[in-house]
Amino acid sequence: MLRVGVNGYGTIGKRVADAVRAQPDMEVAGVAKTRPNFEAERAVAKDFPLYAAVEERADQFGEAGIDLAGMVEELIETADVMVDATPSGIGAENKSLYEEYDTPALYQGGEDAELVDTSFNARANFADAAGADHVRVVSCNTTGLSRLVAPIEEEYGIEKVRATLVRRGGDPAQSGRGPINDILPNPRTLPSHHGPDVKTIFPDLAIDTLGLKVPATLMHTHSINVTLESDATADAVRDLLRDESRLFVIPERFDIDGAGALKEFALDAGRPRGDLWENCIWGESITVEDSGASKTHRNGGGGAAGDDLYLFQAIHQESDVVPENVDAIRAVTGSADAAESVATTDDALDMGF
Amino acid sequence: MLRVGVNGYGTIGKRVADAVRAQPDMEVAGVAKTRPNFEAERAVAKDFPLYAAVEERADQFGEAGIDLAGMVEELIETADVMVDATPSGIGAENKSLYEEYDTPALYQGGEDAELVDTSFNARANFADAAGADHVRVVSCNTTGLSRLVAPIEEEYGIEKVRATLVRRGGDPAQSGRGPINDILPNPRTLPSHHGPDVKTIFPDLAIDTLGLKVPATLMHTHSINVTLESDATADAVRDLLRDESRLFVIPERFDIDGAGALKEFALDAGRPRGDLWENCIWGESITVEDSGASKTHRNGGGGAAGDDLYLFQAIHQESDVVPENVDAIRAVTGSADAAESVATTDDALDMGF
Repeated sequence: MLRVGVNGYGTIGKRVADAVRAQPDMEVAGVAKTRPNFEAERAVAKDFPLYAAVEERADQFGEAGIDLAGMVEELIETADVMVDATPSGIGAENKSLYEEYDTPALYQGGEDAELVDTSFNARANFADAAGADHVRVVSCNTTGLSRLVAPIEEEYGIEKVRATLVRRGGDPAQSGRGPINDILPNPRTLPSHHGPDVKTIFPDLAIDTLGLKVPATLMHTHSINVTLESDATADAVRDLLRDESRLFVIPERFDIDGAGALKEFALDAGRPRGDLWENCIWGESITVEDSGASKTHRNGGGGAAGDDLYLFQAIHQESDVVPENVDAIRAVTGSADAAESVATTDDALDMGF
Repeated sequence: MLRVGVNGYGTIGKRVADAVRAQPDMEVAGVAKTRPNFEAERAVAKDFPLYAAVEERADQFGEAGIDLAGMVEELIETADVMVDATPSGIGAENKSLYEEYDTPALYQGGEDAELVDTSFNARANFADAAGADHVRVVSCNTTGLSRLVAPIEEEYGIEKVRATLVRRGGDPAQSGRGPINDILPNPRTLPSHHGPDVKTIFPDLAIDTLGLKVPATLMHTHSINVTLESDATADAVRDLLRDESRLFVIPERFDIDGAGALKEFALDAGRPRGDLWENCIWGESITVEDSGASKTHRNGGGGAAGDDLYLFQAIHQESDVVPENVDAIRAVTGSADAAESVATTDDALDMGF
């Protein structure tokens, strides 16, 4: 059994802890948190050994009636792998701690790519993390883009990806975030960081990304264009994407119009916290056109072939990196190859609808 | 003096009436409305002769203490041109009325292109409307796309336009519209109607459009990609667009991050109703990259050339078609050519910042 420590028990950390516990080959050595908020209470209720992340605030736990298993250093010492799910930038500060105890560590997408030996996406570059001490699981949006790019690149070749990322302003509980009523080009300069971030996974990919922020909290939504190196039909692309375990091609008959309906669907399906670990791709949006100068308009919805692919996908920012973190644990420890790990993770989480 | 009647005195109609009154060669013959709401009160306060649009509801005006100048038929009979600014679909119902009195009519973008002799954008196809009896001023988004496409097509040639339209859910006063907290691919199938609509202005243009709706009310925001037929630098494109009177290239130093700041800027500038008649293009977003398979990343922000152009633009859905309606009046009556009309309209409205 791999003993996994989780440093940071917030949006990502609490989900990773649950996902790790669900795996047949892993156990949660403990979770670390800076303060005794409701999430700390829940960690204790779930019998996760709770460690204090910051010495100076450790007393607060006792005052809140919460028993600590110890300080985070003790967790790092005993864990086989640490998953750092602290806020952006804190992971970098923690790196020396993991090095001190010689414990391999996974970081989240908010950290710089330069911090680590390799950036990670299970579908695209699992093997690159073998034996690495410091691995970054790329962000929710980069994960969503990488999962999509990998099979398309393999099947058709990619001339260029152009993606507009319409991003939620904050998570549902982040009540201090905006915008309230606006559509912000964000950043206003190109590219957004997502394109270069995808290149940490696919160094040779040509990709231009534009980001915006809007008053939504549930999911991000991507408007995707991929100019292919060879022609495809919409039906063939739909079938290709359906075969990927972490791409959920929403059937048109579900009549799901946005993230609200998607989340309701996930909750109805019994998903923990209503999480959508998969990219959610609208099947009826998958369309191919001609990219070239011929100006002929083809019927992209049916069987006609083209090299300019379009689709919409929604990305659940709180959860799509969770299975990737689980896989990265196996990747750094060399306990499984990509196919085995993904199959194990997906089976344990009951991925797919 | 051209005597202009305005049928429908809502979001567009009231703005067109004000803009017509500001022109040196036009007067408002009257405005027609179905019911005596606050806008009808304001029409009377502004001394616009007010006509009842619907016989059966004409009594409501008298009951509300509003004096009518007559029924809409009388307005149509005396006007040189009618601007139909009624809700989508009602314009089509009114067509026979305009034909009955042999009065040329302008319709808004919500009507079908098939209803009219020609669709209209002042920058792109002014001359096509000469002598036409029925002309459609294309929608806010199509107007915004057409104004951008025209100079780029002329200067560089266009291989393809790819646009993601992040659309406001409703206008500020449309309290019944949604979404509240979502990002809706809308429509979920491609293309959105905007691409084909732009082709009513540029029949040979290759354009793929994707639409979304978000919880915003102030403006639409477009994420634009234009693959050019010849290389351009970002600086050259910026200069090209700055030279267009109805394209406002927002200087980076203004630090305007979205539609909220844009509207505040317009109100500070004394614009009536805070209207932004121009496309509002973020200068710092104008970027060129390579479209090709070479995969070389160029510095698009500076002087390097490329053929894949990107930018963000915000479109004020309530007002960008207003100057176009004014120009279309001159176009159908043959009272000015494109350059004269646009210059007169812009001067009368005090276009530009």
